[in-house]
Amino acid sequence: MEIYVCADLTPEQLQRLNASAGDATVHARTNRAQFEKSEVVFGNPPTDWLAECPDLKWIQLESVGFGEYDNSQWPALGNQITVTNLSGFFAEPVAQSILAGILGLYRGIDQVTELRHQERWLGEDLRKSFRTLNDAKVVLFGYGAINKRLAELLNPFRCDTQSFNSQWQEKDLDRALATADVVVSTVPDTPLTRDVFSKRRLALLPQQALFINFGRGSVVDEAALAGALTSGDLGGAVIDVTRDEPLPTGHPFWTCPNLILTQHSGGGTGDEMDLKVDVFIDNLKRYRGQHQLNGIVSFTRGY
Amino acid sequence: MEIYVCADLTPEQLQRLNASAGDATVHARTNRAQFEKSEVVFGNPPTDWLAECPDLKWIQLESVGFGEYDNSQWPALGNQITVTNLSGFFAEPVAQSILAGILGLYRGIDQVTELRHQERWLGEDLRKSFRTLNDAKVVLFGYGAINKRLAELLNPFRCDTQSFNSQWQEKDLDRALATADVVVSTVPDTPLTRDVFSKRRLALLPQQALFINFGRGSVVDEAALAGALTSGDLGGAVIDVTRDEPLPTGHPFWTCPNLILTQHSGGGTGDEMDLKVDVFIDNLKRYRGQHQLNGIVSFTRGY
Repeated sequence: MEIYVCADLTPEQLQRLNASAGDATVHARTNRAQFEKSEVVFGNPPTDWLAECPDLKWIQLESVGFGEYDNSQWPALGNQITVTNLSGFFAEPVAQSILAGILGLYRGIDQVTELRHQERWLGEDLRKSFRTLNDAKVVLFGYGAINKRLAELLNPFRCDTQSFNSQWQEKDLDRALATADVVVSTVPDTPLTRDVFSKRRLALLPQQALFINFGRGSVVDEAALAGALTSGDLGGAVIDVTRDEPLPTGHPFWTCPNLILTQHSGGGTGDEMDLKVDVFIDNLKRYRGQHQLNGIVSFTRGY
Repeated sequence: MEIYVCADLTPEQLQRLNASAGDATVHARTNRAQFEKSEVVFGNPPTDWLAECPDLKWIQLESVGFGEYDNSQWPALGNQITVTNLSGFFAEPVAQSILAGILGLYRGIDQVTELRHQERWLGEDLRKSFRTLNDAKVVLFGYGAINKRLAELLNPFRCDTQSFNSQWQEKDLDRALATADVVVSTVPDTPLTRDVFSKRRLALLPQQALFINFGRGSVVDEAALAGALTSGDLGGAVIDVTRDEPLPTGHPFWTCPNLILTQHSGGGTGDEMDLKVDVFIDNLKRYRGQHQLNGIVSFTRGY
């Protein structure tokens, strides 16, 4: 069996993978010709390589997002390829980045960072704009691994959380937004999630509310969000994902007030790639034992 | 009875205080002559006013710190004045600011704030420097209301916390520091806490450790701390309190890396003064009913 690795591994990680691969041959980032002869791929290959890969059976992506690998785009391949993603993998670091962002705005971490840059002491005058998270009304839009973990992290703050899964109803969401202190979206990009946080819906939020997005940028009207922050109609935002990444020059998210832009770093940790290798090694064992793989994606469902 | 208010109240807060004061007369920030005739003071008066106040029986400070009101400085007054402080009052917002600071460093909120200022996208490259708080070894130096609340907030992260109260032993602390991920000091300034985090002790900390100070600036060797951050011998710091406040121009805390300087804002919330008035009204009821006051300070003990 030939395994092709697109992920950027250290020599140690590659060695660990080889040691777990048994009699399979591991090719790490060699060339397209090698890719085309492989049965298993670990990492996210260039999509145009998928036009020619007659032996490919399984791709283990190193991301949660998989939209660009939609198999309806490869009619020649039919349904012969199984794609698995890292669903749930980033829940812990992302949930911690979300809490870091909420507390960052409530306790002024962004403000004091700016002030230190200017070598300016405001002291006492900072305090009046601060809040605590206690008893906050938190709307969790998307109720997968990330928001479930976030709900646990919020436990000691005794927040009043309301969650919406894929069965969400328009009028229930609208009603929840009207009294929300914090709204956290963690949903993927699907036809059902696109543009949910429209200008109309953002306007339902109370003036001091925070809007947090660690799912996909397509869920929100970015111009309306930046406008509400600039006019003071919205309290703050923490934005990890945007419609275009890197964020284009001139985009209002670079300069509008009370926004923390985490640059799609939410899932990051120093040991991220080690843990991804662990997931692949575990799934490779399943593959060779003909067991059900973890994290098989559904292109029709969208997650 | 004459009550003198040094705190900076809104007309609404003053009205609420008047409504609770019964037949007592409330004088809000009038003049020293009025102060000298008062029996009760709410707020932090200029210390030199205390030289002449023959009728003064009780000062309700609007702070936790009270060092400048040490009654050994007023020999003429003897021990006739009871001083109460806001012990425990700031525990909730301060604990949340501490967690905001720790997660801010672990999840790069300070870094992304700087990057946004520069309109610079690092994205992927940010992720490798990030950590999660799970299973961190946390040393709580001081185990009053703030660190007790912090321990609750840390529960979902399953940290391994070790706390030191006023009975702390040198060698136990040294041993705990050697393996700490995060050290949080919340102790007041007393002869027993001064200079505890000396250059020698800071050098015991592992290279990735965070040092957090929301107690008093005198607990730490500031030059040694800034030096360790600059040389990379320490991972990061969150500093709310400094030996001189405002922090002087040219102080290394303005420019050294990986430091979040919260400018003594840790206890702040928008409704802070409302809540302080609540505390005073409650204690005033006790005073008039000749019950034990809450928050009586001991100048010999130092808290």
